[in-house]
Amino acid sequence: MRIAVDAMGGDYAPEEIIKGTLMAAEKWPNVQLILVGQQERILPFFVGAKPANISLVEASEVIGMDEHPANAVRKKKDASIVVASRLVKLGEADAVVSAGSTGAQMAAALLGLGRIKGIERPAIGTVLPTAEGGKLILDVGANLDASPEQLCQYALMGSIYAEKILKIPNPRVGLLNIGSEEGKGNELTQKAYSLLKVAPLNFIGNVEGRDVPYGRADVVVCEGFVGNVLLKTAEGLAGVLFQLIKEKITSNLIRKLGALAVKPGLKEIARMMDYAEYGGAPLLGVNGISIICHGSSKTKAIFNAIRVAQECIDVRLIEQIREGIPKS
Amino acid sequence: MRIAVDAMGGDYAPEEIIKGTLMAAEKWPNVQLILVGQQERILPFFVGAKPANISLVEASEVIGMDEHPANAVRKKKDASIVVASRLVKLGEADAVVSAGSTGAQMAAALLGLGRIKGIERPAIGTVLPTAEGGKLILDVGANLDASPEQLCQYALMGSIYAEKILKIPNPRVGLLNIGSEEGKGNELTQKAYSLLKVAPLNFIGNVEGRDVPYGRADVVVCEGFVGNVLLKTAEGLAGVLFQLIKEKITSNLIRKLGALAVKPGLKEIARMMDYAEYGGAPLLGVNGISIICHGSSKTKAIFNAIRVAQECIDVRLIEQIREGIPKS
Repeated sequence: MRIAVDAMGGDYAPEEIIKGTLMAAEKWPNVQLILVGQQERILPFFVGAKPANISLVEASEVIGMDEHPANAVRKKKDASIVVASRLVKLGEADAVVSAGSTGAQMAAALLGLGRIKGIERPAIGTVLPTAEGGKLILDVGANLDASPEQLCQYALMGSIYAEKILKIPNPRVGLLNIGSEEGKGNELTQKAYSLLKVAPLNFIGNVEGRDVPYGRADVVVCEGFVGNVLLKTAEGLAGVLFQLIKEKITSNLIRKLGALAVKPGLKEIARMMDYAEYGGAPLLGVNGISIICHGSSKTKAIFNAIRVAQECIDVRLIEQIREGIPKS
Repeated sequence: MRIAVDAMGGDYAPEEIIKGTLMAAEKWPNVQLILVGQQERILPFFVGAKPANISLVEASEVIGMDEHPANAVRKKKDASIVVASRLVKLGEADAVVSAGSTGAQMAAALLGLGRIKGIERPAIGTVLPTAEGGKLILDVGANLDASPEQLCQYALMGSIYAEKILKIPNPRVGLLNIGSEEGKGNELTQKAYSLLKVAPLNFIGNVEGRDVPYGRADVVVCEGFVGNVLLKTAEGLAGVLFQLIKEKITSNLIRKLGALAVKPGLKEIARMMDYAEYGGAPLLGVNGISIICHGSSKTKAIFNAIRVAQECIDVRLIEQIREGIPKS
């Protein structure tokens, strides 16, 4: 099993990416990890010794967060994410992991790997921490003008992912909407509802924003704009609340003493709500495994994304999706 | 000043609505409060004495949460929300407050009061608790297919509301989007951006979901579907986190002792994040003051909604909006 890791992508690249890769190399000696990027920036981390299961592939260019994704991917043929995706295309790697520009990763996957037959548009699925464990939400921003048919494809792909990777049997699929009853919502969700109702899925109907953090659906299906807003709002609010808790429970001596006692409990919650535990988000619908990491990923998130990539390879995710999509 | 309160709307009607009204009647003896609803269900709360500044108006019908709003408003001419809105229309009340079906309240306002001249569609503005105090987000569900021009009108109305009612001078208006740079987003937000840029507003550009809980904009403008999802996600996540905290900081004796010490700090946060402190959400753009309360409003939320209604009357909100909207 060989996993290409984009060493140049992310706010903390290359250092944290390399550290996460080293951690993974140690944990899984049988997995071959390929660090793709500018060698002169990667090599300094390997003076002395390099683990036998890490190899390096040169990519001279880097795509920045502010570049137009598709244009940059077309122009910079030697960018790390382009080279890493090409390794998958050529069969020299089984998956790619990146914390760089999501748009560029998607463009590189679409141009390099193409779509799975029958899938109109890929979707980014993110595992969102909830009160009931990690639940999949898709799309969180791959596609901003989805059709009802595409939402239905997301549901099918998401259901397969939740079952095979998140190990949730017969996952409950919910349609993100602004009311619980059938007939609620905009044209897109009303039409998607009628398609989902008859699809080979465990469709539980509409779910509202408030249902998502409670984990009332295992797979939450939505259009990319609203999914992106939901994801980032949850991230922001969790951040604000933890910051406030830190301030308010240490604002005087008595509270400080109390804080010492409750800290382990709060840490448990922080761990439950930490995206880094879930590693990465799969780009679902492209013809190859491409794991998207949060831009601010550090060692643990990269390590976990490599774990997710392995699981996707293990369960033959692409073949599973190919078989699960109705031929039309 | 006379405020009509829909006694029959909301999960805890009429009891909590009446209690909130009583609390307000005591606090503001010069405000006339008109409880509208089925007298046989309201009168039992006033055996003995009724404050001089509470009057009762009979409305024999009630619109349920599951009824089609516009149809119900047309058919049930004697429904509490219809009668209450009519009092405003007839000049017998200066504002209406309701915790009943939002759709019905909007339909009653549109049919009974009409729109402010120049406003294409009303918007529901909600005051969202953030790290920097209450910030306005609109629309949270009045209108599910907004145009760029309508988003721009929301921004103008929201800015007036934030300045006059939330007392934020020169409010920062942000466009909810999936990236911070100009040019990001879907067609709606891209076009809205170019309109907002040249509008007479303190427009600070795009804000992402994660910016909202940090309070980085004073007015967050968005299309109703996404606003509704954001609002409910925030509500759900805050609920989940407080529930988890309660569990985890009391899971053993040491933590329980610590919990006693930090509890006042956590209560401060709960109060900061409590929507009931902010009372109600204005229905902006209709030709009269109509304050929408959360369906699960209890005494405090109704009391605060009555306070908000008074403030809207005090600052002549409708006139302010009428003057602030460019004549086209």
